[in-house]
Amino acid sequence: MKMKSLIFKATLLISYLMLMVLQLQSSVDGRAVLSLSKPDPNDAAAYARWLVSQNSWGVLNTLSADLGGAPFGNVVSFSDGIPGKSAGIPYFYLTTLDPTAANALKDQRSSFTISEYPIGTCGETDPENPTCAKITLTGKLKLVDADSEEAGFARSALFAKHPEMKGWPESHHFQVFKLEIKDIFLINWFGGPKPLTVKQYLHWKMNKLAFSL
Amino acid sequence: MKMKSLIFKATLLISYLMLMVLQLQSSVDGRAVLSLSKPDPNDAAAYARWLVSQNSWGVLNTLSADLGGAPFGNVVSFSDGIPGKSAGIPYFYLTTLDPTAANALKDQRSSFTISEYPIGTCGETDPENPTCAKITLTGKLKLVDADSEEAGFARSALFAKHPEMKGWPESHHFQVFKLEIKDIFLINWFGGPKPLTVKQYLHWKMNKLAFSL
Repeated sequence: MKMKSLIFKATLLISYLMLMVLQLQSSVDGRAVLSLSKPDPNDAAAYARWLVSQNSWGVLNTLSADLGGAPFGNVVSFSDGIPGKSAGIPYFYLTTLDPTAANALKDQRSSFTISEYPIGTCGETDPENPTCAKITLTGKLKLVDADSEEAGFARSALFAKHPEMKGWPESHHFQVFKLEIKDIFLINWFGGPKPLTVKQYLHWKMNKLAFSL
Repeated sequence: MKMKSLIFKATLLISYLMLMVLQLQSSVDGRAVLSLSKPDPNDAAAYARWLVSQNSWGVLNTLSADLGGAPFGNVVSFSDGIPGKSAGIPYFYLTTLDPTAANALKDQRSSFTISEYPIGTCGETDPENPTCAKITLTGKLKLVDADSEEAGFARSALFAKHPEMKGWPESHHFQVFKLEIKDIFLINWFGGPKPLTVKQYLHWKMNKLAFSL
């Protein structure tokens, strides 16, 4: 009996370790920056800000100068603030060696699209199912003056979420861009896009969430 | 000593179970449709086809009729074929209740962007790092005649990867769309986009991979 009890205890201990490994894997994947629970889908502003703050990458769309004005999507990393102090405005670190930044300097019309799916909170639900949220912020993609206070803030926000950016080659002349949001398209439940103004989105405060960031 | 040996064996067994759980979690995440190893980055066609076949969702971009011609990205599910028999052409299941399909019916110019990041093979690498691959297929987003053989093939391909699509509400009138590819933008290493023609991409055969699908 004593032996069985010991084996049982060992099993419990190892199961506990297993859970720790699973949690560790989740953070290693980089899919959840902070493990905040998702807000009520009826709270559109909270949900949108949660979705943006929890993601680390998305698809940034511009009008292609090279491809006859076609809409051109590009995978990019972003940050909307230092974790816990995010402001909802996505900042990017781009080089004009890449078509997206070059396109934006010719025509600022742009959108930025992110999905809840890679955060890992959609479970078995299909990425296109409306209960697996998606957001598209449409607006103007603007170069931020490198010497401005805003650029300093943006670099801190970007480097906090994407540490390797600090070491990216200087010869590529990475610059800070931001999306000036004009329209928000949010689907996070059945029944079509959630009504959400840019003002409601930007004025929402992260600390309204009942979690310590 | 006997007891220690038993505990040791139990530990081994549970560690093995732990590994199985980790593998199971990886498939539950839906991030890898088939666990094919990634091809050599120098083989642009193989890499591009691998990237498209392994993903289940991406961002589909159209020109927004409602937002002054802005590029509008939208998270969608897709399939380029029944797993193991994929052909590289992305098919979608869309409703005109959603702006993307409605936009495409007015202006077919479109692009489809997917990232290697959610497959889980980028490790610790940042999603914007060029060694974490990304592909943008630019072309025309076309409605496929619902009664055609192609639509039947596309529905099989879509339902194989996205089983819940079969049960989506009939009242939403989901229709099959496809991207007729005109240009390929692939980044999968340092040194800028990989030269890859549409012909090279489409003519590449999945069975060239030394894996049994």
